[in-house]
Amino acid sequence: MNAEHSSIESAEALVERLARAGRAAQRVLARLNSAEKSAALHAAAASLRAAEAEVLAANARDMAAGEAAGLTSALLDRLRLDSARLAGIAAAVDQVADLPDPVGQVIDASQPANGLALSRVRIPIGLIAIVYESRPNVTADAAALCVASGNAVLLRGGSEAVHSNRAIHAALVQGLESEGIPAEAVQLVPTQDRAAVGAMLTAAGLIDMIVPRGGKSLVARVQADARVPVLAHLDGICHTYIHAAADPAKAEAIALNAKLRRTGICGSMETLLLDAQFPAGQVVVSALLDAGCELRGDHRACALDTRIGPASAEDWDTEYLDAILSVAVVDGLDSALDHIARHSSNHTDAIVSQDQAACERFLAEVDSAIVMANASTQFADGGEFGLGAEIGIATGRLHARGPVALEGLTTYKWVARGTGQIRP
Amino acid sequence: MNAEHSSIESAEALVERLARAGRAAQRVLARLNSAEKSAALHAAAASLRAAEAEVLAANARDMAAGEAAGLTSALLDRLRLDSARLAGIAAAVDQVADLPDPVGQVIDASQPANGLALSRVRIPIGLIAIVYESRPNVTADAAALCVASGNAVLLRGGSEAVHSNRAIHAALVQGLESEGIPAEAVQLVPTQDRAAVGAMLTAAGLIDMIVPRGGKSLVARVQADARVPVLAHLDGICHTYIHAAADPAKAEAIALNAKLRRTGICGSMETLLLDAQFPAGQVVVSALLDAGCELRGDHRACALDTRIGPASAEDWDTEYLDAILSVAVVDGLDSALDHIARHSSNHTDAIVSQDQAACERFLAEVDSAIVMANASTQFADGGEFGLGAEIGIATGRLHARGPVALEGLTTYKWVARGTGQIRP
Repeated sequence: MNAEHSSIESAEALVERLARAGRAAQRVLARLNSAEKSAALHAAAASLRAAEAEVLAANARDMAAGEAAGLTSALLDRLRLDSARLAGIAAAVDQVADLPDPVGQVIDASQPANGLALSRVRIPIGLIAIVYESRPNVTADAAALCVASGNAVLLRGGSEAVHSNRAIHAALVQGLESEGIPAEAVQLVPTQDRAAVGAMLTAAGLIDMIVPRGGKSLVARVQADARVPVLAHLDGICHTYIHAAADPAKAEAIALNAKLRRTGICGSMETLLLDAQFPAGQVVVSALLDAGCELRGDHRACALDTRIGPASAEDWDTEYLDAILSVAVVDGLDSALDHIARHSSNHTDAIVSQDQAACERFLAEVDSAIVMANASTQFADGGEFGLGAEIGIATGRLHARGPVALEGLTTYKWVARGTGQIRP
Repeated sequence: MNAEHSSIESAEALVERLARAGRAAQRVLARLNSAEKSAALHAAAASLRAAEAEVLAANARDMAAGEAAGLTSALLDRLRLDSARLAGIAAAVDQVADLPDPVGQVIDASQPANGLALSRVRIPIGLIAIVYESRPNVTADAAALCVASGNAVLLRGGSEAVHSNRAIHAALVQGLESEGIPAEAVQLVPTQDRAAVGAMLTAAGLIDMIVPRGGKSLVARVQADARVPVLAHLDGICHTYIHAAADPAKAEAIALNAKLRRTGICGSMETLLLDAQFPAGQVVVSALLDAGCELRGDHRACALDTRIGPASAEDWDTEYLDAILSVAVVDGLDSALDHIARHSSNHTDAIVSQDQAACERFLAEVDSAIVMANASTQFADGGEFGLGAEIGIATGRLHARGPVALEGLTTYKWVARGTGQIRP
């Protein structure tokens, strides 16, 4: 349901009320089987399609307000919905509905000497909060992933998308309710209460996990202030190291793709490390420059092509998200590993080499959520990894790392079945 | 190594210096294979045995200081070491050395449509901090579990055990170093700096996880103040529900064992729920009373035996850790589930019943780290669960739940092996 908000209710009281309602709804949701959850999500997708007129009208209000407020064209593009985009959002909900359900999976089982039949069984985490910015598709994506994994969700979108989010949320909930899922399983937190995000971040015991989806300032704020566990990544400072024994054609193709296929995604390469012994370094940087990429190099990289400008110290720690790349020439694998250990954001790092031993050392010793050999870092994506969808990519060290989908939205419990055992 | 502590160094600077040294040592440790780690731990155990005279002399200093300071006999008993206890501590290190190594295990593998060979591989978490109280055995147990799982560790013991911990630590490190593990992989944080715990709790990015081991006030402080992820449980308010269809003899034996085998452990039963339809409730409560247990009941429980006193509202939320038990009579499974949902600390809860459907509903719907059917809650223990040892029991919802051993001290990374793939 769309939360009512009384002006005399504090942000803490609002969040506590919504969270308690969400937790109660989650207990109902947790008892549904996979077929029931799937049917409810398909109903939600159908309801979203049926509400096209309402959703597009609501989006037009947000777009008009955004244009009046002078939002950038990039922000307006993220906000904009049309018939095709809405169909895509509904199709994504259908796709999540058909993913294998992790809840109830037996992780492992054993029978220790005491005779107990012991197993670890996947269960939902509980109540998840998603804090996001202008993209209204997150409302549907996040709701679908949470419901599919048996979790209730509090959705807090950006104020610029308030009407779009309300319309999408209303349609989804109508579909879910028609299949027996309580409306409180998916709740919108009112955007007019600016203090609500702070109250969500500190609602330990009421909210089990928080996922920020948006720009760096949002993620940084959530990571700094949250007392609830956070699943997120701040930066995607991804490296590609072209080893001495790299195949030149593969190296060139991978470097171009890793940087330029899409420059604005977190898995795009931000630093290229060229081994001094790699014979075709000049060819690779020329190809990048010819393709329109700005290169900023250390002094040895600058010597490869006059079009390369000098890199500053900050360049090695910068996520450009643009057609800009820092390039360093390194002396061998150890030197590449050192550079990555100092500058990687532990998102995705790759090696290109035909030397299998070098690849295996790189894969073993680089301590990032995703490590790759002979592939473009742009594959760092839940869909590409066969997860079907992702709630986000995590670079923390606990619980779940890399692309996080349904399994990362579950935890487990120990189930011990006895026949009257007592402990000696 | 035993950390030097300059009086002009702030607690934050101290913790940062130790943490950076620990992280550097961890990168060395992470490259060792299972046999190398195992050999180092066996050497540490041997070194501990060889240092018996030094360790017992150091412990005698702590005991004398503790007696002079008027520590309770319970605290003094936890602090006391003798030849047999020290042999037990060394044997536990040997046992951890022989546990299967989770590091390098492939959790799962797949080949998505893009042709990448994808796998998730277990890796160490990084740098773990353990904050504990008077038991000096934790120094060796925690160090062994962390080293076995490839993690560096910062150990912060209680000031009453300072000499014992230093002696145990020195012996362990001597053994580890003899097999090539850097001394900084296992560091003692000086107890004389009282602000160091606070600095550890907030060292996000430097310390990857913190495990408090000790009394409730320590755990509560760590959970309240930590910005680093915490693995812990605060309370063990464990329930046993005796269903209408329970076998009376099993019910009696399980209730006696769950409460009285050891009353001071976190898995001991604190509340007994008797189904109103269970015919032998009176027998069970009489057996508990006859065994010397104090019972505090609701009005229907009090009617079962005149020796039962009335329970107050707080009793249902109290972890007695003593021969005291709260008893409620409930009307059926739903009523038991409601009571547990309201009062459980989500540690361990059990049902006793010959009705399999009732057991399965209980196991599915009780949302605790450990759920049991027809067994004593006192089995809630890493050793009993076949884990070999445990760093602690966790009641949080993320990362690891229930008894946490080597696997819970690992995380994973995604490894993608390609042959030149670029993303279309």
